[in-house]
Amino acid sequence: MKRPQVTVIGSHEESRFMVEAYEIGRHIARRNWILVCGGRGGIMEAASRGASDEGGIVVGILPGVDFNDANPYLTAAIASGIGFARNSMNVLSGDVVVAIGGRTGTMSELSYAFQYGRPMIICSFADGWSAGFADLALREDDRSLIHMAATPIEAMDTLDALLGGETARS
Amino acid sequence: MKRPQVTVIGSHEESRFMVEAYEIGRHIARRNWILVCGGRGGIMEAASRGASDEGGIVVGILPGVDFNDANPYLTAAIASGIGFARNSMNVLSGDVVVAIGGRTGTMSELSYAFQYGRPMIICSFADGWSAGFADLALREDDRSLIHMAATPIEAMDTLDALLGGETARS
Amino acid sequence: MKRPQVTVIGSHEESRFMVEAYEIGRHIARRNWILVCGGRGGIMEAASRGASDEGGIVVGILPGVDFNDANPYLTAAIASGIGFARNSMNVLSGDVVVAIGGRTGTMSELSYAFQYGRPMIICSFADGWSAGFADLALREDDRSLIHMAATPIEAMDTLDALLGGETARS
Amino acid sequence: MKRPQVTVIGSHEESRFMVEAYEIGRHIARRNWILVCGGRGGIMEAASRGASDEGGIVVGILPGVDFNDANPYLTAAIASGIGFARNSMNVLSGDVVVAIGGRTGTMSELSYAFQYGRPMIICSFADGWSAGFADLALREDDRSLIHMAATPIEAMDTLDALLGGETARS
Repeated sequence: MKRPQVTVIGSHEESRFMVEAYEIGRHIARRNWILVCGGRGGIMEAASRGASDEGGIVVGILPGVDFNDANPYLTAAIASGIGFARNSMNVLSGDVVVAIGGRTGTMSELSYAFQYGRPMIICSFADGWSAGFADLALREDDRSLIHMAATPIEAMDTLDALLGGETARS
Repeated sequence: MKRPQVTVIGSHEESRFMVEAYEIGRHIARRNWILVCGGRGGIMEAASRGASDEGGIVVGILPGVDFNDANPYLTAAIASGIGFARNSMNVLSGDVVVAIGGRTGTMSELSYAFQYGRPMIICSFADGWSAGFADLALREDDRSLIHMAATPIEAMDTLDALLGGETARS
Repeated sequence: MKRPQVTVIGSHEESRFMVEAYEIGRHIARRNWILVCGGRGGIMEAASRGASDEGGIVVGILPGVDFNDANPYLTAAIASGIGFARNSMNVLSGDVVVAIGGRTGTMSELSYAFQYGRPMIICSFADGWSAGFADLALREDDRSLIHMAATPIEAMDTLDALLGGETARS
Repeated sequence: MKRPQVTVIGSHEESRFMVEAYEIGRHIARRNWILVCGGRGGIMEAASRGASDEGGIVVGILPGVDFNDANPYLTAAIASGIGFARNSMNVLSGDVVVAIGGRTGTMSELSYAFQYGRPMIICSFADGWSAGFADLALREDDRSLIHMAATPIEAMDTLDALLGGETARS
């Protein structure tokens, strides 16, 4: 039985929310879920390191063809070779998507999550475009896919609520 | 010498801005530019019909594998077979991108346009998410890619300003 | 009504079969069909030039993001940005696929044509891997997709037989 | 440090070479390498089960958007959503590619492996198209990417020779 997979998205650059991303990554691994991300630096790397420090499994989907673009905390790297078109499969590969800040890349990923019907947890405590996306999306009728998290703990609680019934061990 | 290509994006559903999309499509064809779009209905079809009525060339990039998904005004259809990951190439294939309303699909396309450095004309007269995208993007330092158009005429004038020097015939 | 589209595949390098590719491109344009190709040099460019010299429409689907990679005879260029994964959509975008020589790229395209059920005309007069593909594929039960052409004229006649009933003008 | 990744390709249908695929999957896991595959049944499933039985990590890259298409032995599933265009990333994501039989899908994957410069081990003991691909490819000057294996043991030995120096534990 496939374990739940959680996709974490956010900027590939350093941000003020690395600690939060790290803690969310740790939580994912402690629940025995798989962490999926875009495989690069910044928020992706922080979450990957968190999951890795707990012995979790991290799969990173790189835009390019070169494994050297991967952050050092991936268990496995997908070299997609399709550029940012891979953003679509980042979110398709998560049972739930967690957005921490981010800009254009994250925005396309949230758009895809909405379009493909993947539930999203949007960390309103982080800066970047995610919260702005939520403002737009929440005007729509179908709000059921969007969950706001005002703190990292709230993000983790929402993950537990969405996935915990299935496989959480504690 | 390749002619300029203009990508028009917006909802695949009927909207209140079909006439505006039609007029922008006509303008593109009258300038002898190529119209690129996602190949489906709604705004895409209205713009395609406009360009087609002027004898212009329209290329539609479909998400699926079936030519029957194409609107009837395409000169050529690309059956991408890669789902909404094709949104990336919709904007990559335009020298300029014009956004008329739209929701999640348009949002991912504007994100890609920003990420890949394609200039965008965002029609603020239309509803949908495009204007919300502009609000977010205009907070960034690099605003040079984003042009707001308060009317269809303003959108056409901006197209002329961006592309006209190259090939406009009048 | 969408016009028939013919995808021509083959090496992006110069080969001994440029004249044959040129003549097949001309034939496609004279029949008022759309020529689709990978947009680059070699066989693709020769076929594009043939169609262009007859005033036909040529759409090239480039692997990268840069219009400068296009050969000069395209009417419109798709900047796919997904690398050689675009080979899949080259053949999906043809009602019929014509293979003239070629190596690995052509081989993946013929594989996709078989997998997606697009009829293929394989020019056995050209060198390269296409004929070897045919040898393998013809061992299969479903041979209906594969048509061998021993001469350029035979390739054109087969195109007429497959598409002519629909739109050929003469 | 990323562990070596081995992509196993072959038919998604039952074949006479399931035991061999299973043994190669086991070998990959015993060496502590990651198994990458297309995520579906047949040869992919047999190799996945082998790796899984040894406690190894298996990543499957599905063509579609639905995790239910995955075989039950995957550790993680990538829902690519791009159809068979995902064949490109199957081989890009392997440091080495092992081909066991297969038909058109495998053929496109071997073509990509050649095109992107990934070393291939082609199991000549299995039927299908792989051996035919090798016949074609070995005519080329650059034969360094292609390794023939006449038995499963020979395939494993070649994997050890290509990857063993890096991380094999015994």
